[in-house]
Amino acid sequence: MAVYTDVSDGDLTRFMAEYDLGAVLSCKGIAEGVENSNFLLTTERGSFILTLYEKRVSPADLPFFIRLMEHLATRGFSCPTPLHGRDGQSLRSLCGRPAAVISFLEGLWPRQILPFHCAGVGDALARLHLAGADFPMTRPNNLSVGGWRQLVETTRERADEVAPALADDIVGELEYLESAWPSALPQGICHADMFPDNVFFRDEHVTGVIDFYFACTDALAFDLAICLNAWCFESNNLWNAEKAKCLLDAYQAVRPLGAAERAAIPVFARGSAFRFLLTRLYDWLNRPPGALVRPKDPLEYLAKLRFHRSAGGVEAYGL
Amino acid sequence: MAVYTDVSDGDLTRFMAEYDLGAVLSCKGIAEGVENSNFLLTTERGSFILTLYEKRVSPADLPFFIRLMEHLATRGFSCPTPLHGRDGQSLRSLCGRPAAVISFLEGLWPRQILPFHCAGVGDALARLHLAGADFPMTRPNNLSVGGWRQLVETTRERADEVAPALADDIVGELEYLESAWPSALPQGICHADMFPDNVFFRDEHVTGVIDFYFACTDALAFDLAICLNAWCFESNNLWNAEKAKCLLDAYQAVRPLGAAERAAIPVFARGSAFRFLLTRLYDWLNRPPGALVRPKDPLEYLAKLRFHRSAGGVEAYGL
Repeated sequence: MAVYTDVSDGDLTRFMAEYDLGAVLSCKGIAEGVENSNFLLTTERGSFILTLYEKRVSPADLPFFIRLMEHLATRGFSCPTPLHGRDGQSLRSLCGRPAAVISFLEGLWPRQILPFHCAGVGDALARLHLAGADFPMTRPNNLSVGGWRQLVETTRERADEVAPALADDIVGELEYLESAWPSALPQGICHADMFPDNVFFRDEHVTGVIDFYFACTDALAFDLAICLNAWCFESNNLWNAEKAKCLLDAYQAVRPLGAAERAAIPVFARGSAFRFLLTRLYDWLNRPPGALVRPKDPLEYLAKLRFHRSAGGVEAYGL
Repeated sequence: MAVYTDVSDGDLTRFMAEYDLGAVLSCKGIAEGVENSNFLLTTERGSFILTLYEKRVSPADLPFFIRLMEHLATRGFSCPTPLHGRDGQSLRSLCGRPAAVISFLEGLWPRQILPFHCAGVGDALARLHLAGADFPMTRPNNLSVGGWRQLVETTRERADEVAPALADDIVGELEYLESAWPSALPQGICHADMFPDNVFFRDEHVTGVIDFYFACTDALAFDLAICLNAWCFESNNLWNAEKAKCLLDAYQAVRPLGAAERAAIPVFARGSAFRFLLTRLYDWLNRPPGALVRPKDPLEYLAKLRFHRSAGGVEAYGL
């Protein structure tokens, strides 16, 4: 639940005068997403999303995100694309923040995940990986193995406030992952945050994928492991092997995994659970008093991490 | 900022099957309003608002609100109107709450109030009062003078936590208002909550008024006094006499006040400031820990109340 910045009608009118989208008919803050301020904007030309990039998104990264969305759309992958103003620019400033008008994507994100959703997201992720193959820009993933030591150092001192012996647990896990992390696997454009609220469906079909603000260059199988964590556990954190099979089969129907990638899935599944455990732990320990956003529960990802630790081998993932 | 209830895609699809609005194309929670859960719904037939009535709205009052919106729209007053399902019903149930699909109203609510906005709201309020004149249902205003003693009793014990000597202040004010409250003034349908976020504009014109969930039967001049408080103070709580004149002149151009109504404006201005002071004080003292909604500041209305106390006479209001 978000909307951090309130945009005045005067500021909005001046901002929209830079676009050929006609008069603004309405503008309503959307209570979704936690990183940016998003508004559903209706103009004489249709519906759009107005995004104000808040402090968690680095302005230096915005050209990468914006051009990636344009590139993917050009390759036939359905995602929001930024609109260009009369000056050709798609990134400008509103209320002191970088801001862009983005195309509106139809569809609903699924609250209750069924196996067909997992098949849809597996297919969409593989198509995204192929569509990104010739994207010329790169962006390192600072939330992969190379970034975790810093997060562990920042959170370990107070980690036991969240769960008993969590500090020792994350230190040990970091050591394991740093030693076991596979290198030299196929890299490319990763979405890196393809959770259910970022994938829109109409009936059983994916209408598109949103929120590319964690996108980066990393091992493609690591992106797949993020989806396994995000889509294939039940709400009680129990693993659903059927959903995992749907997701992996649909992915491989478009982009078959190599042998080394298949072998890496167990450690990538641990690693991606660890990544969300660490960032949620950080947000939990650093939530500002009186914040309007309730931080997500780090313990959900501790439970998922423990499943992957005990799963043992690629067979657990149906590979 | 709201959205209390998260509606699953399956529940939404089943709910919308009762309407002839085509397939749902998108549904996004709106981060506005604090009483109900509101979603901007796009279907094959256009844009609509889906409202789930949360606990602060009494289900017994919903037929009054729904029929009032229909009545006002029939009389040419621009406001949202509920859509009827195939069974003729406009009120049904979703996620265990009363729910309705409401027409979408274009326009932006003003963040920075200019004199023309005050003229627009004065004109709209007078037209609402006339359009409501032949509405057959009534609903008592439990947030007028008859309801304040209960609120004072509930809040006085802890009122001094919010401002020094506030408890004595509200007890004294209550006694004054109970003794001075005018009776036998023209009554009718009041909006009773016509704040800037409930009045939409396009350019300098009002496109419509939303949020009738405090509407009631009360003295029309009291409704006007609510607007004076909501629209005619600057953000530092200083009175702006020009804005008040714009609002009152525009109101009287449509519905001239009688002599007794004009004479009642000063006490109604005190009373309406007191009403919002009391309800904000109650919400402030009773905010649940970890709530996602930041309660509005009661001290804003204490400052407004003090202005009205010292203003002295109808001349202060340009009457």
